[in-house]
Amino acid sequence: MVEKRKPMPVDQAIAKVMEFRKAGGTEVVSIDRCDGRRLAEPLYTTNPVPSFNKSPYDGFALRSCDTEQASRNNPVEFEIVEHVGAGHVPEKKLEEYQATRIMTGAQIPDGADCVAMFEICSEIKRNGKDFISLKRTMESGQNVVKKASEIGEGKELVRKGSLINPGVKALLATFGYQTVHVMKKPIVGIFATGSELLDVDAELEPGKIRNSNAYMIMSQIKRAGGDPHYFGKLDDELESSFQAIAESIDKVDFLITTGGVSVGDFDLMPAIYEKLHATVLFNKVAMRPGSVTTVTALQDKLLFGLSGNPSACYVGFELFVRPILQTFLMNDTPLLKRSKAILTDDFPKPNPFTRFVRGILSIEDGQVRVSPAGIDKSNVVTSLAFTNGLMVLPGGTRGYNKGAIVDVLWLDQMEGQTTF
Amino acid sequence: MVEKRKPMPVDQAIAKVMEFRKAGGTEVVSIDRCDGRRLAEPLYTTNPVPSFNKSPYDGFALRSCDTEQASRNNPVEFEIVEHVGAGHVPEKKLEEYQATRIMTGAQIPDGADCVAMFEICSEIKRNGKDFISLKRTMESGQNVVKKASEIGEGKELVRKGSLINPGVKALLATFGYQTVHVMKKPIVGIFATGSELLDVDAELEPGKIRNSNAYMIMSQIKRAGGDPHYFGKLDDELESSFQAIAESIDKVDFLITTGGVSVGDFDLMPAIYEKLHATVLFNKVAMRPGSVTTVTALQDKLLFGLSGNPSACYVGFELFVRPILQTFLMNDTPLLKRSKAILTDDFPKPNPFTRFVRGILSIEDGQVRVSPAGIDKSNVVTSLAFTNGLMVLPGGTRGYNKGAIVDVLWLDQMEGQTTF
Repeated sequence: MVEKRKPMPVDQAIAKVMEFRKAGGTEVVSIDRCDGRRLAEPLYTTNPVPSFNKSPYDGFALRSCDTEQASRNNPVEFEIVEHVGAGHVPEKKLEEYQATRIMTGAQIPDGADCVAMFEICSEIKRNGKDFISLKRTMESGQNVVKKASEIGEGKELVRKGSLINPGVKALLATFGYQTVHVMKKPIVGIFATGSELLDVDAELEPGKIRNSNAYMIMSQIKRAGGDPHYFGKLDDELESSFQAIAESIDKVDFLITTGGVSVGDFDLMPAIYEKLHATVLFNKVAMRPGSVTTVTALQDKLLFGLSGNPSACYVGFELFVRPILQTFLMNDTPLLKRSKAILTDDFPKPNPFTRFVRGILSIEDGQVRVSPAGIDKSNVVTSLAFTNGLMVLPGGTRGYNKGAIVDVLWLDQMEGQTTF
Repeated sequence: MVEKRKPMPVDQAIAKVMEFRKAGGTEVVSIDRCDGRRLAEPLYTTNPVPSFNKSPYDGFALRSCDTEQASRNNPVEFEIVEHVGAGHVPEKKLEEYQATRIMTGAQIPDGADCVAMFEICSEIKRNGKDFISLKRTMESGQNVVKKASEIGEGKELVRKGSLINPGVKALLATFGYQTVHVMKKPIVGIFATGSELLDVDAELEPGKIRNSNAYMIMSQIKRAGGDPHYFGKLDDELESSFQAIAESIDKVDFLITTGGVSVGDFDLMPAIYEKLHATVLFNKVAMRPGSVTTVTALQDKLLFGLSGNPSACYVGFELFVRPILQTFLMNDTPLLKRSKAILTDDFPKPNPFTRFVRGILSIEDGQVRVSPAGIDKSNVVTSLAFTNGLMVLPGGTRGYNKGAIVDVLWLDQMEGQTTF
């Protein structure tokens, strides 16, 4: 009576999904709205940096050849002929024994080839004119930041697919990108299935629970860079559920359903996939929670059938949906960042299948630690609220003791890795 | 001629700023728009979980007392009187040797006190009626998740000030929070000062650069949970700059200016602070970059005078502005997360003052590593784009070798610590 399904190992299941990887479209947004998006094309320099010879200090620009004879016993005097602040262009070309008072970031005047800092100059006023006196020699090029010395024009600074953070945004502004080509967010549709579900604003009724998975998934989609489209709840009724799902597919890049993928009497998703003529990539994964996670493909569009159990739904999203959304966004390290961590508590459960344990990752003394967030029954409800990582306990292992080294997946990191 | 300023140690300067800590206001947002915000009040359970006795498996609900005599040689038969899916309420109270076919998550019918899983039951059809046969005893309460066994009503689940992540959002939905009280985003005003600045869409002109600091800071404000209000650029002209700044103060919770805080001839911020009668908390910090960072207070409002140098501006924001924005948002660990890290490259520069080096943090083998992002002149321009942390090298230290353990601050972590 219970349909037999063959469980697929997690890494193979992820690889199956990733066979459908493709980059999404691009769009143009204002620099004001580009934060957290990914670049759709490399960021190139549009001018050399600096774009003119400039002074790195406040001081006096002058000709180094005029200082050749300068020494403690033989100070050399320069007449100040101009005063230039940053952003102002020097108008006077310096002649013999002339200097320009110049501020940090200002352009070096023609004729000058070095800048003497304030600290080594004595200022003198004589006959209504300003002079400085200098007691040491200067070298040509001293304290001058040469045009293009930092970088030339047309150079690639940041790779396509990079996340726009404050530093990247600074570069976009520096090089005049008032608009930015970014990757379009994948549109991810969501249906929550199950007649037991109530709307979030509904009073509780006997036998029912409020729909929390759809809200959780919407938040996970946003964290993964996607644009969630919630299509509502579906009752456990085949024809209407099929219709709603079939009609939604053209409106999205990916479709997620929660619930209905198991082998219970009211689990309709297998029948819906069949009616859609979708190809089943897998319908059982050798993992806990989330063993019933099902992924199917309709032409090149993936339909993710996540479990209705909140923890299994959460884990299923992060393992299978997030990486494919990240490839759509051109992240070249789309899989969750994986590292070792020191286990801070005993975890005595044996693991007949690969187990993903909700965990709290922290860093102490430069080392990653993980404490399981969901061991006790008492924190089943809240554990997802504190989860920022998943412990990966391989199938076939017995329990783990405090202090053991385990693998963990990072949920708050936007840069991951190329393989599971 | 150069004004003498007394440098304040970094930790003291941060403490001075944090003396002005205060929580901001609150507002109500839809659950659909609450991601990434911070809770303004604790999240309480509004019903027990589960809110009814429920089955954790697909199976048959029955009376355990009827199984007392069941054994391999003495199977006991039950008549199936009802079929209940999740979300449907059982209508029949079970009598002797009756059972209800029940799905995962469904409510246990009256009379029943246990659930026998499908796997241990044989189904029989006889005279048009459905029966099961059971060959083992069941205990009262077996496979029943009791009402309120996970958590009772009115319990605090998540603390006020917590960040709303996918797990917290799931809880909000579970407990019927269609609207959520969140902390208001601090409004942070920004002026970029300096006649050398061009708008981002302007053609380059001799002696000028495009304004990148304001865009960078806007992005940093967003990352820190704030709401940036950009007031534009100010030329190096005292009266107009003073007017613009004075008029902006009532419109913001905090004000940031970039540039103009040094002791150059066109650095107007010291004069503007004086004209505003603002109290200077400090105008020199014993650190590099950003030694000229100035913070003043006008009544209880802080004015941050960050350096015009991009790296110094970036560091100044993260050290001094971000923590106070986080306290406004009720984060009880507002200071940047600090940890040890293994240095992956030589860093030969000596550090007469505490130095904050732009770094790329990574995790390998469960340990934190940091590579300096801005050692070479060639990557001065791009280093901020790749920065996700800051190395903290104490003043008075010589260079560090590859493999040394150094302190680092994490920029992408939203939960930090209580002290610098």
